[in-house]
Amino acid sequence: MQKLDDLGVPEAEDRPSVNPQPLSTSSKKINPELTVSEIKHGVRPGDVYVRMRQSHSRFFRRVGPGHFVATPESDRPESPFERGYRAVKKILIGRPLETVAEAHERLSKFKALAVFGADPISSCAYATEEAMLVLIVAGSGALGISFFLALAVSLLLSMVAFSYRQTVYAYPHGGGSYNVSRENLGKIPGLVAAAALLIDYVLTVSVSIVAGADAMNSALIASGFADQIDAVNSTLPPNLNAKVLLSIFFIAIMTLGNLRGIRESGSIFALPTYLFVGSLMLTLAVGLFKAFTGTLDPAVPPPGIPASEPLTLWLILRAFSAGSVAMSGTEAISNGVPAFEKPESKNAATTLTLMATLLGIFFLGVSYLATHMGLVPGEETIISQVARAVWGTNIIYYIFQIATMGILIVAGNTAFADFPRLSSVLARDNFMPHQFSFRGDRLAFSIGIIALGLIASALVVVFAGDVTNLIHLYAVGVFLAFSMSDSGMVVHWWKTRGPNWKTSIVINGADALLTSSILVIVAITKFALGAWIVVILIPIIVSFFLFVHRHYSRVADQLRIVPGQLPPDKIDQLVVVPIDDVNYASLRAIAFARTISKDVVVLHISTNEERTAKIQQKMTTYAHDMKLVILDSPLRAFVRPLLAYVDAVHSQNPGAFVTIVLPEFITAHPWETFLHNRTATRLRSTFERHPNVAVLLVPYLLEK
Amino acid sequence: MQKLDDLGVPEAEDRPSVNPQPLSTSSKKINPELTVSEIKHGVRPGDVYVRMRQSHSRFFRRVGPGHFVATPESDRPESPFERGYRAVKKILIGRPLETVAEAHERLSKFKALAVFGADPISSCAYATEEAMLVLIVAGSGALGISFFLALAVSLLLSMVAFSYRQTVYAYPHGGGSYNVSRENLGKIPGLVAAAALLIDYVLTVSVSIVAGADAMNSALIASGFADQIDAVNSTLPPNLNAKVLLSIFFIAIMTLGNLRGIRESGSIFALPTYLFVGSLMLTLAVGLFKAFTGTLDPAVPPPGIPASEPLTLWLILRAFSAGSVAMSGTEAISNGVPAFEKPESKNAATTLTLMATLLGIFFLGVSYLATHMGLVPGEETIISQVARAVWGTNIIYYIFQIATMGILIVAGNTAFADFPRLSSVLARDNFMPHQFSFRGDRLAFSIGIIALGLIASALVVVFAGDVTNLIHLYAVGVFLAFSMSDSGMVVHWWKTRGPNWKTSIVINGADALLTSSILVIVAITKFALGAWIVVILIPIIVSFFLFVHRHYSRVADQLRIVPGQLPPDKIDQLVVVPIDDVNYASLRAIAFARTISKDVVVLHISTNEERTAKIQQKMTTYAHDMKLVILDSPLRAFVRPLLAYVDAVHSQNPGAFVTIVLPEFITAHPWETFLHNRTATRLRSTFERHPNVAVLLVPYLLEK
Repeated sequence: MQKLDDLGVPEAEDRPSVNPQPLSTSSKKINPELTVSEIKHGVRPGDVYVRMRQSHSRFFRRVGPGHFVATPESDRPESPFERGYRAVKKILIGRPLETVAEAHERLSKFKALAVFGADPISSCAYATEEAMLVLIVAGSGALGISFFLALAVSLLLSMVAFSYRQTVYAYPHGGGSYNVSRENLGKIPGLVAAAALLIDYVLTVSVSIVAGADAMNSALIASGFADQIDAVNSTLPPNLNAKVLLSIFFIAIMTLGNLRGIRESGSIFALPTYLFVGSLMLTLAVGLFKAFTGTLDPAVPPPGIPASEPLTLWLILRAFSAGSVAMSGTEAISNGVPAFEKPESKNAATTLTLMATLLGIFFLGVSYLATHMGLVPGEETIISQVARAVWGTNIIYYIFQIATMGILIVAGNTAFADFPRLSSVLARDNFMPHQFSFRGDRLAFSIGIIALGLIASALVVVFAGDVTNLIHLYAVGVFLAFSMSDSGMVVHWWKTRGPNWKTSIVINGADALLTSSILVIVAITKFALGAWIVVILIPIIVSFFLFVHRHYSRVADQLRIVPGQLPPDKIDQLVVVPIDDVNYASLRAIAFARTISKDVVVLHISTNEERTAKIQQKMTTYAHDMKLVILDSPLRAFVRPLLAYVDAVHSQNPGAFVTIVLPEFITAHPWETFLHNRTATRLRSTFERHPNVAVLLVPYLLEK
Repeated sequence: MQKLDDLGVPEAEDRPSVNPQPLSTSSKKINPELTVSEIKHGVRPGDVYVRMRQSHSRFFRRVGPGHFVATPESDRPESPFERGYRAVKKILIGRPLETVAEAHERLSKFKALAVFGADPISSCAYATEEAMLVLIVAGSGALGISFFLALAVSLLLSMVAFSYRQTVYAYPHGGGSYNVSRENLGKIPGLVAAAALLIDYVLTVSVSIVAGADAMNSALIASGFADQIDAVNSTLPPNLNAKVLLSIFFIAIMTLGNLRGIRESGSIFALPTYLFVGSLMLTLAVGLFKAFTGTLDPAVPPPGIPASEPLTLWLILRAFSAGSVAMSGTEAISNGVPAFEKPESKNAATTLTLMATLLGIFFLGVSYLATHMGLVPGEETIISQVARAVWGTNIIYYIFQIATMGILIVAGNTAFADFPRLSSVLARDNFMPHQFSFRGDRLAFSIGIIALGLIASALVVVFAGDVTNLIHLYAVGVFLAFSMSDSGMVVHWWKTRGPNWKTSIVINGADALLTSSILVIVAITKFALGAWIVVILIPIIVSFFLFVHRHYSRVADQLRIVPGQLPPDKIDQLVVVPIDDVNYASLRAIAFARTISKDVVVLHISTNEERTAKIQQKMTTYAHDMKLVILDSPLRAFVRPLLAYVDAVHSQNPGAFVTIVLPEFITAHPWETFLHNRTATRLRSTFERHPNVAVLLVPYLLEK
């Protein structure tokens, strides 16, 4: 039960007041044009408006009648707490950028390959290994097949890349699967593609970062620190082991980097990508030379593993599915066309070709060397074993490991560009909360970046930082998005029938068939291992999109202006002023109420006869023109009787607007509020869901 | 950085709206007298006001012009959640009582002895033992002194009781130490007494309840369950052992009981008090008979304990201090005079005499029997050992233990009557937060009761449920309050000089000397053991009282009406309507603004030129009479530029009142709010500390 507020504490005879906030009754109109020369009102010493004597010109630039531009100065924080927060944010995120700066945030081909290409290229760090981990049950001898699997994946990749080049040209404003599917196949297929992509972006972060942590782990094992790593992990919970903590640290850094803006993240991340590309090329060249000269030997002789299962077609298909994760991220370039420097499509297509070529060479090279030496995946990654065989455990090996870790982080970063971008497109299309389309201080889509960082970190924790477990969820989304996009492109060419439309249909159609067959293979072979989660998740996410869309549509329907049904120019209104004492604060509120309406009821909810009598007498003295209603509350409740009274008078004219004008004093120090009731807050929430009722507080600031 | 609200989501052409809340422009005045026959407005089907067609007569009774009484029906909760909460509360606390029921909540002498007398009477359950625990270091032989200490305490008690009888008659409206000291000695001595009393009330709860748990413990040990108790405790943290948990459970029950109201708690608790009084009388009678016939033997032969320290005066004084805790609670009756049935003073005085007599007899009797048998305190309490020696481990023994536990709980309950009452008096005098003076549903001072329950539970946990440790904090407050009260009474008699004033001065003066001497002894002997905490705490609490008082005085000063300095009848005002789109909700807000003021600025904070152009065009169509100001915000901030603009226009006339009228739509389902920004909430907190600025939301309820 709510108690009466003690607005009038403590009652006292009327003697000189300390500092009433000034209120004026001049007939002077305020000039909204802010002509600075007019601002010359002096105020009492100690008055909070002293700083207003300053010119306001530093806050606003007048560009025309009724048109101003706010200067960065107007966004200057007031409280020391907020100033501190801003300072920290400025260090972490950078100074806020103006909206007009947006156009400059574009990527050159060189940087774009680092940002978008890192994801597919880096997958050669784990794709070979994942395929081998499946084949190993058929014994060490079966591992040789992985080279041919790599060949198949590379062929597939070139096919997909070739097909996507067409998309990039056809959709220069961003031809992601969502756009292409939605435009050509319809709303639901578009949303299915979008859901698949969002899931894969999250997995890109988790998988890449964990693989990056694995690279570091391998380097430490190669240096003989295996026991120390075990010792550290034995003191940590399994789901928060050293690798998981390292991964979360990387994700946090990436989140901050991306909140700073896409161009800067391009700069930060170009170095590791090209370091990896360069060092892996060198490693492969030297490795192949040694292999052909017969001097290539593994650092640690691989153990011979006996077969525990026969080498079936099922096993080969599973291994292929595992290796096909290398394809992930091919989509990214077509979705990110607008982020390229002009000419966007051409640059994007070139980058796409370059990326596919590099990935094909790397994937094949690593697989060849691994199978050549008969390497077996273990605690140390395959790619680390290859590098060690080529270089030994020397400085070049360590540089290579660091580069591997670096590119994998950059790969995770790809998703930090894609996920927020796709989310913002979905938000603009009313399928995701609009907050995802707001640009932060640095013009990045902050909410999407933060959401991605949080979800990816959660995944890493749940899967205890294990690449193989995470991989099982991967690839379904990738191939779903591919096949949706290609099918969409077939419809697109059929509709538009531009030059060479028949060739285009054949290319995209063939790719559509190919990728959907592989989708089926991937989904079936990985289903029991974790792909079922994705299969369940996609319809859930699509339902969420539709729920959000329905909500926004309904809101729009209800807010829409109907030319014949405008609200009246002026509204009937009744003002209720609940008072618990007659004092300076309540007289201010009454004066305010008198100013805004001729229909004012001053209401006192009475729990104490003596006090009520005093109030009645004071009202006669100070506000005899006001209608005073006394409402006895024998159960000492305040809010509900007020609610009932307002409902009752309102029912006489439901079309009227009831404003509850509440006198409120604000204590000088926030901690003093615990000495008073917070009636206002309670009243607000009580009347929140009442139409045509508003609660207005007339604040009176206490100065000490 | 704050982002713009998406008030206009999603933009759409103007076509038929679904359900605008009706707004009327009739010139009909609302009648605040609620004449029921006038209520006949029909509203559209589906309109939330349908229930208003019902008569409101069941919510209000009209008792005169502008004077209503709210019926209990008006306090009826609306939401299922609140209905559930109320139902649970009704079961725990009881149905709410009307304020007029207050006068009936008085105590008869019989119940008053149970409520107020239980505290001192019950202390014989531990006071003897605490004195013996000090003496034991001088060996078993020294324990015989405890009888003489008991004699000294009993004499002291009769003296204090005799002195307090005078106070009860002199202060029929409650003559607690606070009242008497404040009135006669001044503000600070009064507050010191109050602080001392509040501390002692908390300790009364903790000590009594823990001693009650000890009684249960002793009965279990007597029944051979010592090992099981240890086993249970070994699974619990030391500060939450079984005794602590049991104590907290008791305190929770008592808190609920007292929230139900003092009379009912009197009824609940009379039984155990009288069961204890009766069974202890019987035990002492049989025990003394057996002792004189030489057939009284301890159940377990007490171990002979050798002296580790000599029997010094210091040791005897410490033992006396420990035994003097029996005096606590004597104060309670004089403080609680108004709770007695009429004639209050006479009934209180009689109860006081009765209580002191009973306590004297019991304390002496227990001490005599314990020293007669040479009992030694151990895991089992002394009083339990006495009872077992008299009865053996039979049913009467168990009844006696249950009665002991019962009266100790009732003793704790004394403080549940006193603490909230004293707090409410202090709150009414502006020394404690006013919330302590609000009466709950059952007319009890809810906040005080809950605060006491929480603090006492915390103490039990901190001291791990050990009586001896808690006792060290006790008694300083008791004797401080005694000596303040007696000194105050001396001044009182000197001032009033009524009949027999000289005798009265002698009585109170002698007692003042006596109790202050004992205060010095108690404070010195217990200082190092824990009394220092109380010595530090009292000035802190007094400072808090003064801080609160200063705050309330300042508030009163600032709220006081100065006849020549009234606020003007009407106030200059400017209304700012920030809009982010022109839709039905914003047109309502604009109409509202037009109704309340002629000086309205519609402000759009722009981050998107296209959108702004659309808004300008729509404003021309739908609200061409309004002044529209566009404020470009290149950093995409919303709140701060608005704040700066409002400050700027406000500075032209700081005495004007600025109302920020904000269109707001309320989603049909609360969970949908996450799809929208909560600009309103941010704006409110931003402008909270600005004088002469109010934020008003014009709510538009979405219906789906």
